[in-house]
Amino acid sequence: MSLRTLIYGVGPIGALIAKYALKKGYEIVGAIDIDPNKVGKDLGDVIGLEEKLGVIVTSKPEEAFKPRRPDIVFHATTSWLDKALPQLVLAIKNRVNVISTCETLSYPYYRYPHIAELLDNYAKSHGVTVLGTGINPGFLLDTLPAILTLPHIRVDKITAIRSIDAGKRRKSFQKKIGLGLEPNTFMEKLSRGELTAHVGYAESVLLMASMLNVELTKVEEKQEPVIAEEEARTEYFEIKQGTVKGIKGYGIGYIGGKEFIRIEFHAIVGANEYEEIRIEGEPSITWRSTGTQGDMGTAAVIVNLAPRVVEEEPGLKTMADLVKASYIHA
Amino acid sequence: MSLRTLIYGVGPIGALIAKYALKKGYEIVGAIDIDPNKVGKDLGDVIGLEEKLGVIVTSKPEEAFKPRRPDIVFHATTSWLDKALPQLVLAIKNRVNVISTCETLSYPYYRYPHIAELLDNYAKSHGVTVLGTGINPGFLLDTLPAILTLPHIRVDKITAIRSIDAGKRRKSFQKKIGLGLEPNTFMEKLSRGELTAHVGYAESVLLMASMLNVELTKVEEKQEPVIAEEEARTEYFEIKQGTVKGIKGYGIGYIGGKEFIRIEFHAIVGANEYEEIRIEGEPSITWRSTGTQGDMGTAAVIVNLAPRVVEEEPGLKTMADLVKASYIHA
Repeated sequence: MSLRTLIYGVGPIGALIAKYALKKGYEIVGAIDIDPNKVGKDLGDVIGLEEKLGVIVTSKPEEAFKPRRPDIVFHATTSWLDKALPQLVLAIKNRVNVISTCETLSYPYYRYPHIAELLDNYAKSHGVTVLGTGINPGFLLDTLPAILTLPHIRVDKITAIRSIDAGKRRKSFQKKIGLGLEPNTFMEKLSRGELTAHVGYAESVLLMASMLNVELTKVEEKQEPVIAEEEARTEYFEIKQGTVKGIKGYGIGYIGGKEFIRIEFHAIVGANEYEEIRIEGEPSITWRSTGTQGDMGTAAVIVNLAPRVVEEEPGLKTMADLVKASYIHA
Repeated sequence: MSLRTLIYGVGPIGALIAKYALKKGYEIVGAIDIDPNKVGKDLGDVIGLEEKLGVIVTSKPEEAFKPRRPDIVFHATTSWLDKALPQLVLAIKNRVNVISTCETLSYPYYRYPHIAELLDNYAKSHGVTVLGTGINPGFLLDTLPAILTLPHIRVDKITAIRSIDAGKRRKSFQKKIGLGLEPNTFMEKLSRGELTAHVGYAESVLLMASMLNVELTKVEEKQEPVIAEEEARTEYFEIKQGTVKGIKGYGIGYIGGKEFIRIEFHAIVGANEYEEIRIEGEPSITWRSTGTQGDMGTAAVIVNLAPRVVEEEPGLKTMADLVKASYIHA
């Protein structure tokens, strides 16, 4: 498939996206990163290919858009829409579509409703489409549970759980969930924003609710450490007894006083890997998977949806615009 | 949700659709059937409600459209698009959207490419949308496997199996899969079209392929009887040893000489109920469910999608127009 793409952010996810984009036959016409170890180098070298791509990583975003206008930007720089905003504005101003891993962009109307309003208008004015997505938020705990409700005439509650073995993930992931920290330190760092752990519980809950046409009365999200009962180790961290061996996170959407949507993300060293989606109602069903690799999954979601985003009508979109099939809460 | 609906076909599925439509708060403004036992009666009585609905089942389709124009027709009369055609044309001529359980309409470009071409044009001229869908074809063995491929960067093969206990299904279903017949009689009746068993294997394969942007080189479908090794019985049929206790059906889509899509439907007395969807590629995954009730599922799919069909742009659509998220075979 022929698409001209620009890689905005050549971190672990951006590098995977670049590799998959090439496998799909997309062209890469530019790459942006701020890491001095990457700037000025050929993208092929930076992402570990054996051949050069003729694309030099630049730290000057304006220049990356100049030589050849891309059809779409693969954006993977931050979880936070306010931080991503200058980058998105630049892409839109250049009339280039954007698909982004930015977690808070997957349902931007929650944390950044006014930015979302402005972005939608700006994207429409410039005739381009902007979508935030990924494996989570974006697919496993929102879009997929929503479509699984389609054959149900009544839904009382949706529970979606994703469990991964944190010990098998990359170092930066293990670090951001606080492996090996004392529980107190974990909670302090989490509250100060020094540990992000997972971002996007509320976004998943609200994205799913928007697909189901449900007005939630309250949304909660929280994360808590899981404490090692015995010593463990990963390739990168030593985990003493009594320190953090993972996290459990929750997003809950209520209707009245009752849980209607409950999503859980477990990232724990040594945990079984699976997704489980339970729909209670008329009828009830449980779906269970053998597990999804997160980084690969996010990169694949982004790369697979790129042609759809290019074709979609202009504006700020969510996955609810691409998947219009679910139970309707009427 | 406020929708004016018309029930076209008050068989087992049409009756379920009518009940669910009422639960959703849709209004029913008309009902059409040819069964003399239903014509002239109140729809509430016909579908077993305790109250009358003030809608009299009519055998004269033209009249059903007259009193108040519906927003959408729930069409459930036949598996075959050529037989459904006069009914669809009437609805479209009256400028009413259609959502139909007609199996061959779920991907009409296979068995009826020219009718599909004409219908699309006719629907567009009249500003209405036409969609064929249901649990199978329409969801479990096509749309759902397709969306499950989204986090995969490479897909080598998709296998989707649906297994139901035929003994738990309604009598007309048990009859159409030939329970209790001698194997020879089964094969004769199947080849003469007197037994339809399941319709839509090729439609599911091609619908899924259209979502994945795959050009298949060949599509096969076949059904075979499953023979009872010991006596069994259902509420409606006695199954002697050596006679038919169910069917296994297959739809296979090839790329070159290799199976790329394989779907199987098992409807066997006493079978475990489940769906299993396996995606082989990069990465591989298996999803398995606790099983889906088919009639309820079809009715729910139809009722839940009705507002989407009303909103959709005019034309003849497939589920690929509502679910634009899957692996792209590029």
